[in-house]
Amino acid sequence: MAKSGITPTREQDYPEWYQQVIKAADMAENSDVRGCMVIKPWGYGIWENMQAVLDRRFKQTGHENAYFPLFIPKHFLEKEAEHVEGFAKECAVVTHHRLEPGPDGGLVPAGELEEPLIVRPTSETIIGSMFAKWIQSYRDLPLKINQWCNVVRWEMRPRIFLRTAEFLWQEGHTAHATKEEALEETRMMLDVYAEFAEEHMALPVIRGEKTAGERFPGADMTLTIEAMMQDRKALQAGTSHFLGQNFSKAQDIKFHDQDGKESFAWTTSWGLSTRMVGALIMAHGDDDGLIVPPRLAPKHIVILPIYRNDEEKSKVLDYCHTLKAELDELEYSRRELQVLLDDRDLRGGEKKWHHIKKGVPLRVEVGPRDIESESVFVGRRDQPKSSSVSRDEFLGTVLQTLDEIQQSLFERALKLRQDNTHSFTSFDEFKAFFTPANQNKPEIHGGFAVCHFVDTPEVEELLKPLKVTARCMPLEDNDQSGTCIFTGQPAERKAIFAKAY
Amino acid sequence: MAKSGITPTREQDYPEWYQQVIKAADMAENSDVRGCMVIKPWGYGIWENMQAVLDRRFKQTGHENAYFPLFIPKHFLEKEAEHVEGFAKECAVVTHHRLEPGPDGGLVPAGELEEPLIVRPTSETIIGSMFAKWIQSYRDLPLKINQWCNVVRWEMRPRIFLRTAEFLWQEGHTAHATKEEALEETRMMLDVYAEFAEEHMALPVIRGEKTAGERFPGADMTLTIEAMMQDRKALQAGTSHFLGQNFSKAQDIKFHDQDGKESFAWTTSWGLSTRMVGALIMAHGDDDGLIVPPRLAPKHIVILPIYRNDEEKSKVLDYCHTLKAELDELEYSRRELQVLLDDRDLRGGEKKWHHIKKGVPLRVEVGPRDIESESVFVGRRDQPKSSSVSRDEFLGTVLQTLDEIQQSLFERALKLRQDNTHSFTSFDEFKAFFTPANQNKPEIHGGFAVCHFVDTPEVEELLKPLKVTARCMPLEDNDQSGTCIFTGQPAERKAIFAKAY
Repeated sequence: MAKSGITPTREQDYPEWYQQVIKAADMAENSDVRGCMVIKPWGYGIWENMQAVLDRRFKQTGHENAYFPLFIPKHFLEKEAEHVEGFAKECAVVTHHRLEPGPDGGLVPAGELEEPLIVRPTSETIIGSMFAKWIQSYRDLPLKINQWCNVVRWEMRPRIFLRTAEFLWQEGHTAHATKEEALEETRMMLDVYAEFAEEHMALPVIRGEKTAGERFPGADMTLTIEAMMQDRKALQAGTSHFLGQNFSKAQDIKFHDQDGKESFAWTTSWGLSTRMVGALIMAHGDDDGLIVPPRLAPKHIVILPIYRNDEEKSKVLDYCHTLKAELDELEYSRRELQVLLDDRDLRGGEKKWHHIKKGVPLRVEVGPRDIESESVFVGRRDQPKSSSVSRDEFLGTVLQTLDEIQQSLFERALKLRQDNTHSFTSFDEFKAFFTPANQNKPEIHGGFAVCHFVDTPEVEELLKPLKVTARCMPLEDNDQSGTCIFTGQPAERKAIFAKAY
Repeated sequence: MAKSGITPTREQDYPEWYQQVIKAADMAENSDVRGCMVIKPWGYGIWENMQAVLDRRFKQTGHENAYFPLFIPKHFLEKEAEHVEGFAKECAVVTHHRLEPGPDGGLVPAGELEEPLIVRPTSETIIGSMFAKWIQSYRDLPLKINQWCNVVRWEMRPRIFLRTAEFLWQEGHTAHATKEEALEETRMMLDVYAEFAEEHMALPVIRGEKTAGERFPGADMTLTIEAMMQDRKALQAGTSHFLGQNFSKAQDIKFHDQDGKESFAWTTSWGLSTRMVGALIMAHGDDDGLIVPPRLAPKHIVILPIYRNDEEKSKVLDYCHTLKAELDELEYSRRELQVLLDDRDLRGGEKKWHHIKKGVPLRVEVGPRDIESESVFVGRRDQPKSSSVSRDEFLGTVLQTLDEIQQSLFERALKLRQDNTHSFTSFDEFKAFFTPANQNKPEIHGGFAVCHFVDTPEVEELLKPLKVTARCMPLEDNDQSGTCIFTGQPAERKAIFAKAY
């Protein structure tokens, strides 16, 4: 058996493999602050590329960026009952505004605030309070705002990128004159997320509606994109909420229409976070480490010079610098092609593994013999074999090769999902699907189970012992009625069930 | 006297003029959270453009972006004595991690933390704690990291953009093997800031070193760029700190050199914040509102269609759309030219004033007569008069015109500074310079006073009653010794003194 870059392998211990990939690719690490991670340059570079793609799409779809306070007065949060219920248990609370010397020499909190401030877990309430001031007339609508920021939700079981006390995200907040327009916005932004996931993350997703129990606290409807990770678990990758008039009533967001009549606005919100970096790792990584889809890669290509002595070194480095200069002229996916020439004085094998673990899409090795034959030795991160290609052919096809890698990652992920999605008409078979055949390998989590169901708390209770949740009711191909496999009642729609992150 | 767009004018009441410009240009407003502002799209768009320019320069100079926790454990802050002394009085302190129902029905903080967390006022301590883990050997150096984030300093007298409890900024943090290299970095980043201010903000700045009393808490040396606002007050626009080995000793950032000897690293930090948006307003705004330097403008050009009836409207809009399409093809200062066609149904005068107040660099009015003569009516925001120009000439010269506006703003600001900078050899004259001749017009704040001085606390005390501070000891043209005008002692350098924001 070939040695793998990451120990353990996915099959041996998937959760530990995930942590080891993050470490090997030098993406992030835990900090000394409980539940808070440090995002290192390679992980942050991927997030920056995600941001650039999304930000462009948000602007194209008529949104403007703005920035709202980090702190939310406690009474703001209390205005929407379901909302505060959903977040009260995980709030970081600021109670003092300075430190002063304490009795034992250290510093103690002082300057107690009249009202505690909550570090935003999400910004519906603080942004809504401004919307209420800004919106007077139908002429002020629609109001379409996006914010890039950090948020804090006190996680009891933090997991790097997937569930951290602090994370980075964007949150869109919009207000509309009609219900139809707000619903349209909710669906449009789900589509923006789905396209982003599929076209840039190479991550196939199912667009669906959340069940009542899984909705955002305070929303009338939550739409979601759900993806399958390699351990067959689901990951909610982005959500778009139709908030109805719940927040506008709680916060008095009113407008006068053309006839002078006063109505409450219809609002939406939608968010996508650094959790997506975790999804990228779990969807595409292999037993040698991370694989970054080319469209989001901080570096597309690494050039590795190979030489045995100073004479060779100078010749090889010259050749590599010229090659890099030609590649630097190219553009891929609306960015300059990012090429790294790794000329560190390290052993060749060590260097090569470094970039394999980081998931750089293309490696180009250049030694004296490659120069003689005017060729380069090219390795694709999505394939095990490397091959010699003429220099000209490489330069002429490099952008296409990156697209092929992007496409192959998508197809691999799609095949995994297709192979592990099954329809069920009996609860017993459903249960068997989610019960590992080999109890020593709990990493295999069934997959996606599709079946008719009725959206009731009773069904949720039935699922709890299996640790399975309804992920969503797919928006497409879901208009045939049938029988709920849990209750036997007539059911209008199917849902997808899975174990989930 | 012509009516101005902003009431009061700068001369009547400069501080109030500043607030009114922010309001008229719809840049930001105060929130319900004490001292925290909401940055609205026009203000945030300027900040985004500042970020883009700086981020490119940081990457070109070898820095990588990363992200560190919002929260700092209290004992981290306590490690560096001067540092904690500098920030303890203005810290937002998180003491609890949830809310639960209280005795009177509302929610109260619960889940008290074992150790309070400080919302970062700056990140030397939390980033240093990671540097200590990452740095083992000289091979790990230099380590050059930048972070874009929010920080909180509890301001007692908040002022929008200039001094807010929460603000956005970037903070660079680097570690080096030698003192010389760290000093070099400190100076290089000051140059990056100065170039940014002068070339992009059109803001002439003086590069200098802070006096001992004005240094960053914990630094061995603080370099600064200082600019003059239109009320003759100084504004510190960006600072770059040489931290010596203070933080590396406090936090144990050590490395083994090539001979295996262990040494403490030399560190730097440098930051620039949303305060610069305030500087931009105060440096360039006039009595009609904001003027945005073209290189940072969210919109470079606004097209204003003018018509009296539907027939004219359709013809004029067609012409405007074609004009916009041609302008959209152009690139200015590494961005696509940003052109807004304002076709809202508003009175022409109202619309025009809207964009004057927002400071859009170029306005293009198009009416039926302009179409007949194939011309456009062009107004430059930096000049009072508009004029008719042939359509072709306008398209052929528009990029050059934007550059001319950029240049004229810089020259105007430079002239203001030159006219209001004076050298002094007597303390009496110095005092007179900072004492308003007309006590009813306290908006005139003297200007920059240049004189020899010795850097002692005694001089600081002398200056307090005047509300004047030493802004910096200029780096250039400052090697002649003389006599301190405050103490009569021999002095090696001159400093610049001013009232300041």
